[in-house]
Amino acid sequence: MLREFVMAEKPEDEEFSLRLKEARDKLFASQMKIKEAGLPVMVIFEGWGAAGKGSVIGKIIQNIDPRFFRVKTFPKPSKEELRYPFLYRYMKEIPEQGKLAFYDSFWMGEVTNARMEEVLSDEEYEETIESINRTERSLVDNGYLVMKFFFQIGKKEQKERLEKLLDEKNTKWRVSKSDLYENKHYDDCMEVYDRYLKDTNNPTAPWYIIDSKDKKFAELQVLEFLNQGIETATKNRGLAAPILQNTFPLKKTPLLKEVVLKDKVLTDEEYDEKLKALQSELRELHNKLYRKKIPVIIAYEGWDAAGKGGNIKRITGALDPRGYEVLPIASPEPHEKARHFLWRFWTRLPRTGHIAIFDRTWYGRVMVERIEGFCSENDWQRAYNEINEFEKELTNWGAVVIKFWVQIDKKTQLARFKERQANPEKQWKITDEDWRNREKWDQYEEAIDEMIKKTSTEFAPWYILESVDKKYARIKALEIVIEQIRKACDAKD
Amino acid sequence: MLREFVMAEKPEDEEFSLRLKEARDKLFASQMKIKEAGLPVMVIFEGWGAAGKGSVIGKIIQNIDPRFFRVKTFPKPSKEELRYPFLYRYMKEIPEQGKLAFYDSFWMGEVTNARMEEVLSDEEYEETIESINRTERSLVDNGYLVMKFFFQIGKKEQKERLEKLLDEKNTKWRVSKSDLYENKHYDDCMEVYDRYLKDTNNPTAPWYIIDSKDKKFAELQVLEFLNQGIETATKNRGLAAPILQNTFPLKKTPLLKEVVLKDKVLTDEEYDEKLKALQSELRELHNKLYRKKIPVIIAYEGWDAAGKGGNIKRITGALDPRGYEVLPIASPEPHEKARHFLWRFWTRLPRTGHIAIFDRTWYGRVMVERIEGFCSENDWQRAYNEINEFEKELTNWGAVVIKFWVQIDKKTQLARFKERQANPEKQWKITDEDWRNREKWDQYEEAIDEMIKKTSTEFAPWYILESVDKKYARIKALEIVIEQIRKACDAKD
Repeated sequence: MLREFVMAEKPEDEEFSLRLKEARDKLFASQMKIKEAGLPVMVIFEGWGAAGKGSVIGKIIQNIDPRFFRVKTFPKPSKEELRYPFLYRYMKEIPEQGKLAFYDSFWMGEVTNARMEEVLSDEEYEETIESINRTERSLVDNGYLVMKFFFQIGKKEQKERLEKLLDEKNTKWRVSKSDLYENKHYDDCMEVYDRYLKDTNNPTAPWYIIDSKDKKFAELQVLEFLNQGIETATKNRGLAAPILQNTFPLKKTPLLKEVVLKDKVLTDEEYDEKLKALQSELRELHNKLYRKKIPVIIAYEGWDAAGKGGNIKRITGALDPRGYEVLPIASPEPHEKARHFLWRFWTRLPRTGHIAIFDRTWYGRVMVERIEGFCSENDWQRAYNEINEFEKELTNWGAVVIKFWVQIDKKTQLARFKERQANPEKQWKITDEDWRNREKWDQYEEAIDEMIKKTSTEFAPWYILESVDKKYARIKALEIVIEQIRKACDAKD
Repeated sequence: MLREFVMAEKPEDEEFSLRLKEARDKLFASQMKIKEAGLPVMVIFEGWGAAGKGSVIGKIIQNIDPRFFRVKTFPKPSKEELRYPFLYRYMKEIPEQGKLAFYDSFWMGEVTNARMEEVLSDEEYEETIESINRTERSLVDNGYLVMKFFFQIGKKEQKERLEKLLDEKNTKWRVSKSDLYENKHYDDCMEVYDRYLKDTNNPTAPWYIIDSKDKKFAELQVLEFLNQGIETATKNRGLAAPILQNTFPLKKTPLLKEVVLKDKVLTDEEYDEKLKALQSELRELHNKLYRKKIPVIIAYEGWDAAGKGGNIKRITGALDPRGYEVLPIASPEPHEKARHFLWRFWTRLPRTGHIAIFDRTWYGRVMVERIEGFCSENDWQRAYNEINEFEKELTNWGAVVIKFWVQIDKKTQLARFKERQANPEKQWKITDEDWRNREKWDQYEEAIDEMIKKTSTEFAPWYILESVDKKYARIKALEIVIEQIRKACDAKD
């Protein structure tokens, strides 16, 4: 793409001034359209060192009220950031609906740098490209406008600019080692950039190459493409996206009604004995996974009053508080609802060596949001694949992902609801909503069956915890957690 | 994609029957939705020999009224078809709005066969993939639903099926040489197929891989994906698509107002002499290009009464009638309007060695359709790129593409209009519409300037014919046609 790119023709002065004014005014007018349409806009700037990305961003934001945008740069990842998946620090910074985010280099920079430094094998590169393409697709499918600009200058032009900057005491600091490296190895870099642009040039999030030999002209080009993109995207708000086929290997799973609950019982003695032994085993494993820097994500879903809380407590009872976190997930806050539905989970990921236990999860999308109509049918139908892709990112990163469905029958739930209501200390645990949900038991069961079937991937399968006897469910959970963590520890020797 | 594909789990009998009935009923109901939404639907079936594509197509169409669909197969291209661009015979068969077309193998088959037979170099393969991706994108952008299914079976399963077919006299004929070749070289074919699926797996026209070990199950999978696709696409009717950046090298062009018309004049003597010489030159060249099998496309656009007709006559005057065709382009017929706007031009392409002269062209999209609002703004804004891509296909095929803009000034037009009205023999040439268009001269001029600027690619630039003196314009046209054809003939030695 880059190789064949032909520098654009700068318009004559008169036309140029006219178009620049028009484009600036249009962007100024767009900010209200963006707000009204609730459009989240990502504007990504990549390109050669000294091509003038920063100065163009500076110009462009002058047309927008500071309440409506943010500018974000991504220097080399810090040691802390390296303890998260590659996508993490980018996903953290996606804008909310109605706002713009400008990125002075986004994930491209990190990938192409790693490529130049030869720390990314062909296979890793392919995998990263796949992650990026999936993520950009998922952002667009969820209503994001993703505009990607690459600032292009020639080798000679770059050299002159760098020399000019180096000549002056006040600007010398702006030239980085990698800028100089880039210029010296211009052709190699060109190849890497060209390949990246080609590999990520998706019809729904295409690249725009900006001829950057003149700063004002670069500004005009960006403005015109940006305005056009905003216009198209505001027209397309609420559009449905194709529902992709699952491409991940799935495990065979039972329907909920096929799960045998009877006889899944432990005596108090059995329970006490096993609990003690398993907790001490987990305690030791926790140290091990900390040393091996393995991240663990445990996801709990289950019927109201199925015993999730008590179950979680038996896990955390064995853990060092510095090494885990329990994350109770309620309905999303306004600032969470205004972003990609996985954003609030991306931002809650554990660091390597840590455990995150989610009490309710991203599966809300295909349960409560589906049933209550909090998202469109197209949204929840797409979500199975989006969730599998999300969990694939986690396991590719090296995480152990354990998903528990805590299962009881309808009768058991009723008994526990009544007990809660009768017991003043437990009354806070039972709400009108619980009763309303109970009325929709069959609808939920259908949704849960579909969810378990479509998201029991080999890398992140569901485990059913039979919880009519809570003791039984707790021991089973501990056993699974220990088994999965041990496997991961053994594999990372 | 194909390598990692995991065979799907066939549901239990009861669920299976239920879902199959539901899916069939849904498709049956969809045909009216498709008609009402005016959705054109392309359903493409590819896959291994004996995987059962044909029989599944047969099952599926039973749910649809014959008025709403067509089935089309593409055997190896005939000698006649090979005289057209690769995409030609496929583009000819795209459905109109509100109808479905089922393809028992589409362009994939032709590409992967050529790949297996090693008649397509890496470079040619890349170029073909690019053509296909562009075309699928352009179809989707223009409102088409493109559903692509690949029928997957294992090597052993295929072998058994082929042997069974060969065993019976009545079915023997159904096994082709290429089926046997495929099974013998299963792994090599797998690699070629896998690569193709990966290379063309676009978010807006994704692949669905169908586990074909069971015919009824394959039918169910196709039906469910197809129903889902139709549902999404009907919701998305009229959606705007991103406007891509031009990636083709453009020539610098003047604005119409900068074109000097004065002094572009020939005396009658000069004209007669030159005309005679040039026509005899062209006559000879016509033989040459026929022998060399070079296709030539000459596109005329220009102001009303600019002298297009007379100009064309001076070209055709030199040509053997068996080797050229003049194609007058009026506003599209209903069946043309119901398809991709380039369809009526794809279907009118000349064979190799032939000349097609278009009197008005595909540029109507960015002139009259733009100004009269016959298409959306998003449509005509996207069209510059779509047209450049179309012409790129033509020149890649080896065609000489010559585009003339026949230019006069407003005053000259008025004089000619009046003359036409005064002359009973010419009165048919002047209509109310011509007068109405004249009133929009400035709007047209703006559109034409933009068109010439954005579509003067290096492979298919515009030539301005100054036609206040028609003689001058005719001689200039002949000179350009001769020059371009000569260049192509010389290059193909």
